[in-house]
Amino acid sequence: MNFYSRKWVRPEDLNANGTLFGGSLLRWIDEEAAIYAIVQLGNHRVVTKFISEVNFEASARQGDLIEMGLVATRFGRTSLTMRAEVRNMITRKTILTIERMVFVNLGEDGAPAPHGYSTITYERDRMPTIQPATE
Amino acid sequence: MNFYSRKWVRPEDLNANGTLFGGSLLRWIDEEAAIYAIVQLGNHRVVTKFISEVNFEASARQGDLIEMGLVATRFGRTSLTMRAEVRNMITRKTILTIERMVFVNLGEDGAPAPHGYSTITYERDRMPTIQPATE
Amino acid sequence: MNFYSRKWVRPEDLNANGTLFGGSLLRWIDEEAAIYAIVQLGNHRVVTKFISEVNFEASARQGDLIEMGLVATRFGRTSLTMRAEVRNMITRKTILTIERMVFVNLGEDGAPAPHGYSTITYERDRMPTIQPATE
Amino acid sequence: MNFYSRKWVRPEDLNANGTLFGGSLLRWIDEEAAIYAIVQLGNHRVVTKFISEVNFEASARQGDLIEMGLVATRFGRTSLTMRAEVRNMITRKTILTIERMVFVNLGEDGAPAPHGYSTITYERDRMPTIQPATE
Amino acid sequence: MNFYSRKWVRPEDLNANGTLFGGSLLRWIDEEAAIYAIVQLGNHRVVTKFISEVNFEASARQGDLIEMGLVATRFGRTSLTMRAEVRNMITRKTILTIERMVFVNLGEDGAPAPHGYSTITYERDRMPTIQPATE
Amino acid sequence: MNFYSRKWVRPEDLNANGTLFGGSLLRWIDEEAAIYAIVQLGNHRVVTKFISEVNFEASARQGDLIEMGLVATRFGRTSLTMRAEVRNMITRKTILTIERMVFVNLGEDGAPAPHGYSTITYERDRMPTIQPATE
Repeated sequence: MNFYSRKWVRPEDLNANGTLFGGSLLRWIDEEAAIYAIVQLGNHRVVTKFISEVNFEASARQGDLIEMGLVATRFGRTSLTMRAEVRNMITRKTILTIERMVFVNLGEDGAPAPHGYSTITYERDRMPTIQPATE
Repeated sequence: MNFYSRKWVRPEDLNANGTLFGGSLLRWIDEEAAIYAIVQLGNHRVVTKFISEVNFEASARQGDLIEMGLVATRFGRTSLTMRAEVRNMITRKTILTIERMVFVNLGEDGAPAPHGYSTITYERDRMPTIQPATE
Repeated sequence: MNFYSRKWVRPEDLNANGTLFGGSLLRWIDEEAAIYAIVQLGNHRVVTKFISEVNFEASARQGDLIEMGLVATRFGRTSLTMRAEVRNMITRKTILTIERMVFVNLGEDGAPAPHGYSTITYERDRMPTIQPATE
Repeated sequence: MNFYSRKWVRPEDLNANGTLFGGSLLRWIDEEAAIYAIVQLGNHRVVTKFISEVNFEASARQGDLIEMGLVATRFGRTSLTMRAEVRNMITRKTILTIERMVFVNLGEDGAPAPHGYSTITYERDRMPTIQPATE
Repeated sequence: MNFYSRKWVRPEDLNANGTLFGGSLLRWIDEEAAIYAIVQLGNHRVVTKFISEVNFEASARQGDLIEMGLVATRFGRTSLTMRAEVRNMITRKTILTIERMVFVNLGEDGAPAPHGYSTITYERDRMPTIQPATE
Repeated sequence: MNFYSRKWVRPEDLNANGTLFGGSLLRWIDEEAAIYAIVQLGNHRVVTKFISEVNFEASARQGDLIEMGLVATRFGRTSLTMRAEVRNMITRKTILTIERMVFVNLGEDGAPAPHGYSTITYERDRMPTIQPATE
């Protein structure tokens, strides 16, 4: 599992009890997973389809440094399944784990489309030369 | 299931593809579930512990009106399990379902503590007279 | 008056004195009123036109649960007038009242247009089958 | 009336119809009024008490430059009343006017306290040497 | 140098150490400089090109009132250079200075274009009658 | 130079011209640099002191994936200097470079304090066992 994006927990990330708001964590990991899926599938049109077994193992506090890790665990015909972990950068203590995050690859028409991949890329060679659709 | 909080999907809620960002949805429902749990358990000190079977059934777009519903499905000794649904207010079409969201009741010391309830309240009579801890 | 949307007051909602920022309250109630007006008038094209007699009766603090209520008080030819209240969910103590919030119903051309309604709907049967305009 | 703070309307400031969100406008002017009141009353402990006659005269769009103006219209014993205007910086066209925004001066104990002023200051000589209370 | 926009430092503006987040300061002054450049060059299509010598001279805390000042220091053929300062409104103590912020004037095609000005305007007479491009 | 944090450019990150807002870029890189400095200096109490030679080399659009890289270039007695780059994750095209970002190491009293390091760590073994100060 590779860890990329990092956060320094600030006041605006806290819930009313003064610990890291669970909803912020979920938002961060969902964005990170979307980026990972786009790189693996070589397509900007991916959407979150299913998430399961989200465990909040420990809390985080203001000032903590955290990092987010992802790894592809299954390439379906039109989907990609990932496992995710958020941990404290310094102590390496796990904060959150997600057993399965399933993203679906969409075609031009917005319907699920085969992506043609079956293994993880460690390069960034899958991206189409086509730019993301602008508004 | 009762539906309370509502959102009018605005540009800041969209992902880069122009549809409702999954991370925003998760953040909204996590806040709504925390409020529901606080009312059911009569305690401000509740934390998200586990989430499972999150299904993104349909997308939403800028301008859509959505509403969030929750219902308690199990009272554990120190926990509360809920089922959640987010739907389009007008068409009633389901956008997101969550089979199980488990919150834990914490004591003064931050450790899980028995809450003493086993049924849903439809009143707001469980709240302690103690105010939330101020900073 | 019916109360729908709820908030759990977090650090990001506070002003520099550590109490709930009045501007956040106004933003929340304006969004809630827009949603209420859209449902009553069956039209996404509504705009805030006039607000009067906004009373900040009590403050709120981090950790408070609050809820927002609205009721239509007058159906004009092209307008809808509402009364609003924000209160503490637990103590039911009033935080904010607004005597009159006037929204105007707009036509395709952006000009005020008659909406044809004169009574409150308790259903959601007024929405046009036309989807909100996408960008 | 003096105009100070300025905004460049960005996507995150828009409502679902693509025009400037009324709630954002209200939040901006409430913050600007708080700053104005703090300078006039020489006290950081001020709160919004009452707002009346808010007129949304014209809309604003993405890319518009807007500016906010305020003027004190009445010094009460413990209060300050202001008139506000938001306008397009270039065309000078009025976007929003507020006839009365009443702020109250609070003492150390959080209760209304006499401020001792009866005229507008054009200097910044009223501020106490006491720093704002830190958390 | 003229000071226009003001901020009242709130919890959401703080870093994890509880002082004003440097990134928030940079974001605020960048927006203020863009507005200044648009007014001076009479064109909405301006972009930040270069920033140099940013000095964080003092910190700011929750509750501080700050204001942002700018002055044009050089009119290039397609560019405008400004000097910026952020200071505490009450004590006038400098918080941040920026020696050079260079914005570039763009044409319809998005490429640098001559702006034709060589002196500061104190009026707002340079704006084109053409509205900003809507999406 | 190592690249860690990533962003998927969303509508809320855009300026009024529809391209990535320079202020957002500066805020992101400032947070990333703070995290990098904390890890290198083994101290949560670090502050941005000076930034120079910020070049906006190319723009980014909604939907672009970007990543942020940093490398320590000089260890002073109480400071750390870094070079930064933001680039498009797919095309590897440079978006922003910063020649020098200087952070200062603070002691318990908030004054600059020697950090005792002179080389880059590739481990995370410098962190003090002391947790960040909670409010």
